[in-house]
Amino acid sequence: MVLRVGVVGGGQLARMMIAPAVELGIDIRVLAEQEAMAAEIAASAVGDYTDTGTVLSFARDVDVVTFDHEHVPQTVLAALVDAGVAVHPGPHALQYAQDKLEMRAKLAELGMPQPEWAAVHGAAELQDFIDANGGRAVVKTPRGGYDGKGVRVVSAGSDAQDWFDALDEGGALLAEELVDFTRELAQQVARRPSGQIVAWPVVETIQRDGVCAEVLAPAPKAGEKMIEVAARIGVDIAAGLDVTGALAVEMFETSDERILVNELAMRPHNSGHWTQDGAVTSQFEQHLRAVLDLPLGETTPTADWAVMVNILGGPSDGGLTDRFADAMRAHPSAKIHTYGKAPRPGRKVGHVTVSGDDLDDVVYEARAAASYFGG
Amino acid sequence: MVLRVGVVGGGQLARMMIAPAVELGIDIRVLAEQEAMAAEIAASAVGDYTDTGTVLSFARDVDVVTFDHEHVPQTVLAALVDAGVAVHPGPHALQYAQDKLEMRAKLAELGMPQPEWAAVHGAAELQDFIDANGGRAVVKTPRGGYDGKGVRVVSAGSDAQDWFDALDEGGALLAEELVDFTRELAQQVARRPSGQIVAWPVVETIQRDGVCAEVLAPAPKAGEKMIEVAARIGVDIAAGLDVTGALAVEMFETSDERILVNELAMRPHNSGHWTQDGAVTSQFEQHLRAVLDLPLGETTPTADWAVMVNILGGPSDGGLTDRFADAMRAHPSAKIHTYGKAPRPGRKVGHVTVSGDDLDDVVYEARAAASYFGG
Repeated sequence: MVLRVGVVGGGQLARMMIAPAVELGIDIRVLAEQEAMAAEIAASAVGDYTDTGTVLSFARDVDVVTFDHEHVPQTVLAALVDAGVAVHPGPHALQYAQDKLEMRAKLAELGMPQPEWAAVHGAAELQDFIDANGGRAVVKTPRGGYDGKGVRVVSAGSDAQDWFDALDEGGALLAEELVDFTRELAQQVARRPSGQIVAWPVVETIQRDGVCAEVLAPAPKAGEKMIEVAARIGVDIAAGLDVTGALAVEMFETSDERILVNELAMRPHNSGHWTQDGAVTSQFEQHLRAVLDLPLGETTPTADWAVMVNILGGPSDGGLTDRFADAMRAHPSAKIHTYGKAPRPGRKVGHVTVSGDDLDDVVYEARAAASYFGG
Repeated sequence: MVLRVGVVGGGQLARMMIAPAVELGIDIRVLAEQEAMAAEIAASAVGDYTDTGTVLSFARDVDVVTFDHEHVPQTVLAALVDAGVAVHPGPHALQYAQDKLEMRAKLAELGMPQPEWAAVHGAAELQDFIDANGGRAVVKTPRGGYDGKGVRVVSAGSDAQDWFDALDEGGALLAEELVDFTRELAQQVARRPSGQIVAWPVVETIQRDGVCAEVLAPAPKAGEKMIEVAARIGVDIAAGLDVTGALAVEMFETSDERILVNELAMRPHNSGHWTQDGAVTSQFEQHLRAVLDLPLGETTPTADWAVMVNILGGPSDGGLTDRFADAMRAHPSAKIHTYGKAPRPGRKVGHVTVSGDDLDDVVYEARAAASYFGG
């Protein structure tokens, strides 16, 4: 029997599922938003993922539908389930990735450590939250934000007036405590529909301008305790939210040594790209195995350290491949990944991973190799 | 600029170039022999590689033409070169992979260590060779043999009479000394057109019925000296024959500790599949880099040991993917690769690689995981 996975969305996450799919012998098909997307080589259809008919038709020839992103509307997801299509992660899990207010409420119910938060319906409620939380707060639109978009740090209730004005009747924004964090962490786990869950070691993520810039794996100075605590949070959330496939939990580490859950991503995630070159099983292979309900692979790192540096923006002239010769000559140990996307300021167009036994060396090599693809 | 590599031949070697091509962002196109070949996902054309027009037309849209096998006729290769197409490896190198008599003569010229050999034109000459070499010999048809086909151990000149009868006027067979070897080794190297050459550590290959069954990387008990000697042979042959791309040198280790060159393959080779999961740069990525004349990647192993076990034949009922659940459950560290080929006795339909720091464990795990895909 041929195993067929359909991926809705043709971005780099779908693209990076192609390599393990081809190696394992899984037939991967992609519903791309348009021509010439990152995952073009496996694109079997081009169409609108918000259109039920388009997605149902795409789903007809696959064993399971999964996703490059969390934006497929619940109405479309429900139609897939009604039609008997296996959908992983399922609609009931995805709602928590689609709506940050629902996520916060669910995590509270599960007793997960998280920042102080509240649903605020107007400037006055936001001002109350700010006053109760040290004079500042983070405000988020519950839906549609990513990579720092839909997130604002405010010190007055009126600072989010434009967002309140845009809310539907009865709608709310998410107000969160501005956490005094010392660094950001991310925990990758994967879970099968039948329940098996595995965790990679927790990593440190370094953001610039709200976008992930670097990942250090495992998180430096993470003791056994922190690794256990972070893995437990990932496992509990995956199980508690019935997540199937890959789950990334973005977390803050605070100056008083607590870990607080920041965001969730129910798919392979930028903070797990290091696993392609630095772990026995990559998050992309694992996601395929998980959504097919196959036993999960070992998550052990293959080196003491792996560091991933994003290529943001890309060259101001020419394409990424024009820089290959210089980058490869200077950094023969660097694993270079590009996404087939046109360079554009701030856009994630590729990444570089370097592994080794000396963290300083690995960080230096990864940054230096990635720098060949800048400006 | 988009880098475009055209691969003639749609077998598993072309297929295994797809993953690194997609990750790097190289546009890979395959001229497959027929529909539903192993490399189907990248097949941009289906046609006869012995037809000059077909291959020229395929070559029009790529920056370099390379190969899944060495069987493209010299007339077709010459037409490509005449048309200004970059061809790697080139026709002058490929002739030595296509004709074992030419290879032996060239290796002799380069002073490479090899078994006693002779071109024999008839049963009498073969008998003389047998008499001079201890009463037995290996006879090979110079062209078209692979995986033990076209190879025969003989003890009388008349044992190859059928092959002599089939020769063209003036043609010859290759007679070789039956080497008293203790084991077989293989050396992978890769070379760019501009000259850079890199070598992976020499590996031990275990053949069954003339077909590669297992590879242990690096070759157990290979001291620094043997690793150097083997690498030097690979490098000298690559340079001496002007090989571009991947080169595998199959070798005998003799009971008196000599290394003798057995066969050459000018492409990624079964003995190098371990590099996908066990080295910083796989032979498939390296081949792409080499034929594009890009700087070559580091060849360092990522674990103390990597063991690759071929899946030969495959299940007698159902497909390979039907065995995934059991194999993955029992062996979460196994990297499973399948080629999308229908099971058939003796056919190479996939392989399994396991890495780790204890050779016995790694061998056990790899064999046990592969065994799930048998009979």
